[in-house]
Amino acid sequence: MLAEIVSIGDELLKGQRVNTNAAFMAGALAGIGVPVQRIVACSDLETEMVAVLAESLERADIVLVTGGLGPTRDDRTKKAVQQLLGRGVEVSEEAYAHLATWMKQRGREVPDSLRDQAVVIEGSIVIENTRGTAAGMIIECGEQFRNHYLVLMPGVPTEMKAMMELSVVPWFASLSRTVIRHTPVKTLGIGESMLAEMIVDVEDSLPAGTTLAYLPHAAGVNLMITSIGREREEVERDNQSVVDAIVQRAGRFVYATREVTLEATIGELLSLAGKSVAVAESCTGGLVASRLTDVAGSSAYFLQGFVVYSNEAKHQALGVPRETIQTFGAVSEEVARAMASGCIEKSGADFAISTTGIAGPGGGSQEKPVGMVCLAIAQKTSGTVESRTLYMYGDREQNKLRFSEAALRELWECLRRNPKQ
Amino acid sequence: MLAEIVSIGDELLKGQRVNTNAAFMAGALAGIGVPVQRIVACSDLETEMVAVLAESLERADIVLVTGGLGPTRDDRTKKAVQQLLGRGVEVSEEAYAHLATWMKQRGREVPDSLRDQAVVIEGSIVIENTRGTAAGMIIECGEQFRNHYLVLMPGVPTEMKAMMELSVVPWFASLSRTVIRHTPVKTLGIGESMLAEMIVDVEDSLPAGTTLAYLPHAAGVNLMITSIGREREEVERDNQSVVDAIVQRAGRFVYATREVTLEATIGELLSLAGKSVAVAESCTGGLVASRLTDVAGSSAYFLQGFVVYSNEAKHQALGVPRETIQTFGAVSEEVARAMASGCIEKSGADFAISTTGIAGPGGGSQEKPVGMVCLAIAQKTSGTVESRTLYMYGDREQNKLRFSEAALRELWECLRRNPKQ
Repeated sequence: MLAEIVSIGDELLKGQRVNTNAAFMAGALAGIGVPVQRIVACSDLETEMVAVLAESLERADIVLVTGGLGPTRDDRTKKAVQQLLGRGVEVSEEAYAHLATWMKQRGREVPDSLRDQAVVIEGSIVIENTRGTAAGMIIECGEQFRNHYLVLMPGVPTEMKAMMELSVVPWFASLSRTVIRHTPVKTLGIGESMLAEMIVDVEDSLPAGTTLAYLPHAAGVNLMITSIGREREEVERDNQSVVDAIVQRAGRFVYATREVTLEATIGELLSLAGKSVAVAESCTGGLVASRLTDVAGSSAYFLQGFVVYSNEAKHQALGVPRETIQTFGAVSEEVARAMASGCIEKSGADFAISTTGIAGPGGGSQEKPVGMVCLAIAQKTSGTVESRTLYMYGDREQNKLRFSEAALRELWECLRRNPKQ
Repeated sequence: MLAEIVSIGDELLKGQRVNTNAAFMAGALAGIGVPVQRIVACSDLETEMVAVLAESLERADIVLVTGGLGPTRDDRTKKAVQQLLGRGVEVSEEAYAHLATWMKQRGREVPDSLRDQAVVIEGSIVIENTRGTAAGMIIECGEQFRNHYLVLMPGVPTEMKAMMELSVVPWFASLSRTVIRHTPVKTLGIGESMLAEMIVDVEDSLPAGTTLAYLPHAAGVNLMITSIGREREEVERDNQSVVDAIVQRAGRFVYATREVTLEATIGELLSLAGKSVAVAESCTGGLVASRLTDVAGSSAYFLQGFVVYSNEAKHQALGVPRETIQTFGAVSEEVARAMASGCIEKSGADFAISTTGIAGPGGGSQEKPVGMVCLAIAQKTSGTVESRTLYMYGDREQNKLRFSEAALRELWECLRRNPKQ
C-alpha cells in the first residue's frame, strides 16, 4: 500500500507558510508501515487541484489532502473533489450535530457562515473534528479509482493532527501489512563527511531492505536507519544490527538511539544523578532556559534562569564584578565564568551554564566578530568553572540557535563526564 | 514565467524533516514576481527523481531542486539529471578551487570523499557555495526542454539560502517581467470566521488580479493580500486599496501591514517611547525573553529576564512573598502581579510582564487545568499592575507558545494604550 500527500493552499506556494502538516502526516503513515511516495503542494485553483488529485490517485492507494475545507472563499477542496469524482455533496447529520454542540459550548447558535462545515462528499465516512468546525472525510473513490482512498482534512495543524490520531491512522493501520522499523542515531559535534568516513564499512554492508539517511542539524548530524520487510522479527533484527555497528564506531558522538531531544537527554542525566541546573544567558536571551523547560517535568531539575542582557543586569543579578566587564568586555570567557559562578551562588543549583556572545547583525568587531560566543559551566560540588569560546557563521536567528545548541552540548558532555557528581 | 520546486530526500517522505527549504525558495521567487505552481517532495531513487523532474520541466520554465548533492551515497541528484538530460559531468575548476580554499581554511587538504563536490553537469553555470562544499548549478536544459532551467542546490538550508540570495535570485530576476505585490495584514485576538464576517464586503469587491488569503496562527489570523499584473502602478494601487479597506474595518485587531513580527512591533513601540522592558517568567521558561531578544537591536530596550521556575526562585529573585504563593498557589494572578512588580523593582525597567501557568502535560487540577496561565503587566511610572487569566487547549509546546504569544499581546496592547508613558 502506497500513499501520497497533497497540501492545498496558495500560502505554501508563496512561501508564507512552511508545510509542517505534510511532515506530521508522513511520520504518522510511516508508523503504520505505509510509505509515502510523493508530497505535493498545489494552489487552491479548482483546475489545478483536480489535476493534482487525479495524478496522485493514479499512483497511490491513499491520498491524504489537507487545506481548503475552511469557511472562507479560498476553501474550494470539496468542489474540486466533486468535479474529479463526479459526486454530489450532502449535509452530514453527525457533523452538523457536532458543529451545533461545538457552538453551543461557546454560547452561540450555528451561524450561516459555518453551515457548510458540515457538508461532505456523498458517501463519505465522516471524520469528527475534535478541535474545530470543519468535518473531515474518508472517501472510497469508486469507478475511476476503485479501492483508492481520498482523505480530506482541514489545514489547521491541531485539527488535522487530532483527526490523524483518532481516526485516520486507526482506519488505515488495519489495511496495511508491511513492517517498517525506524531507529534514529543522534549525534553531536561531528560533521556529515567525517561521520560517513567513520562508518563507511557499515554502509558498505547494509542488510537488504535497510537504508541509512543523513540528517544534518545545527550542531551535528542525525542518522536514520530504516528497515522494511514482511517479518517483524527479521526487520527488527536487521535494524538493530546496523544501529549497534554505528554506535560501536561513532559512540562518543552519539547522545541517543531513539526519538528524544538533547534537552530531554540532559533532563534524564540530571534526574538520574539527582542534580539541578540553572542558566545565565546574555546572547541567547532566554533560549537555553526555554529549551530546557520544553521538557515535561523539567521543574524537577531546572531551578532558575537569568537573562542578563545589560551589563548592569549582569552585575546586579549575578554579581559579575563591574571591573571584569570593563577589563575584558561583556563578551569574554572571564565574564562567562563570573556569570556561571554567580548563577550557582544565586540559584543554589548543582550545575550552571552561561552564554555571552554576539548574535548580530550589529555589535561585532574585528577582535570579537558576530557569531563569537563564550560559554562557561560551573559545578557546585567541585567548585570548578570551565569556559570556552566558539565561532558560528549564521544570521541572528541561526547564531542564537547554535549558541544555545553549543551550550546544551557543553552541559551534556559535562554531565556525561561526571555522572555521579 | 512559472516555477516549480522539487525537494529530494527520503527524510521528507518519512516525516523526519519539515520542508522549510521549499517555503524559503517560494518566498524568494515570489519576491521577483515568479509564481510557484507546485512544490513536490520525492524520494532519492533515481527513477522517481527522473520522473518528477521531467513532469515539472513539462509544466514550468524554472525548476529549483534541493537535496542529493552531498558527499554520501544517498546523494544521487546529479545521476538523475544526467539520465534525464542525457548529459555527462565534468569537474568544475572554479568549484574545485573554491573547495580547496574552503578545506585549506580548515587546515586540511581536499579529501577523496569530497572531490565529487566539485563535479557538475556538463555545460552548467556553477553556483558558488559560500557556506559549504557542494557546488550548485543552473542548467539550461537544451533539446527536450528548450529554454527551461533546472537549478540544483544542496539541501542544507544555510547553503541553499546563500545560493538563492547571492546567485539564483539575481539570475532569474532579470528574466521575469510580471509584477507581484504582497501585503500582509497581521492581526491578533480575533478568529478566522469573525474576521471574515467583518470584511465580507471587501472580499466581495476585490479588484481583478487581487486575492486575499487567511493564515491562522497561534493568537489570531494574518491576511495576505496579493495583486498580480503587468503595470507596477496599477498593481500597487489595487493592493493598497484592499489593505486600507481591511484596516478601516478591523483596525483595532491589526498590529502591522508589513512583514514584521509582533516582537519587532513591540520593540519599535518601546524605542519610540524611549522605554525599557523586563520579563519574569515561570511557565514560559524563558520563551518570552527569547522572543523579545530575537529582534536585532533589542539590547536597547530589553534589560533583563527572570526565569523563576521554582517557588524559591520566585521568592529569592523577585521578592514574591512566600505567603502569597502559599495562600493563592504559584499559578495565580496574585503571584503574577507580585512577579511583575518585583521584576520592575529588581530590573529598573519601565514595563514588566510576567507569566505563571500550567503548560502540561502534568500539574493540572480541576480548579487549575493544564493550559491555564496568569499574566500581569506592571508599569513603573504609574505604579499600576494589571493581571488576567487565560485558558489554552494545546500540548506542552503549543501551550508554551500560546502563553508567550498572549504575554506579548498584553504588552503590545498596553504599549498601544500608553504611547507616551
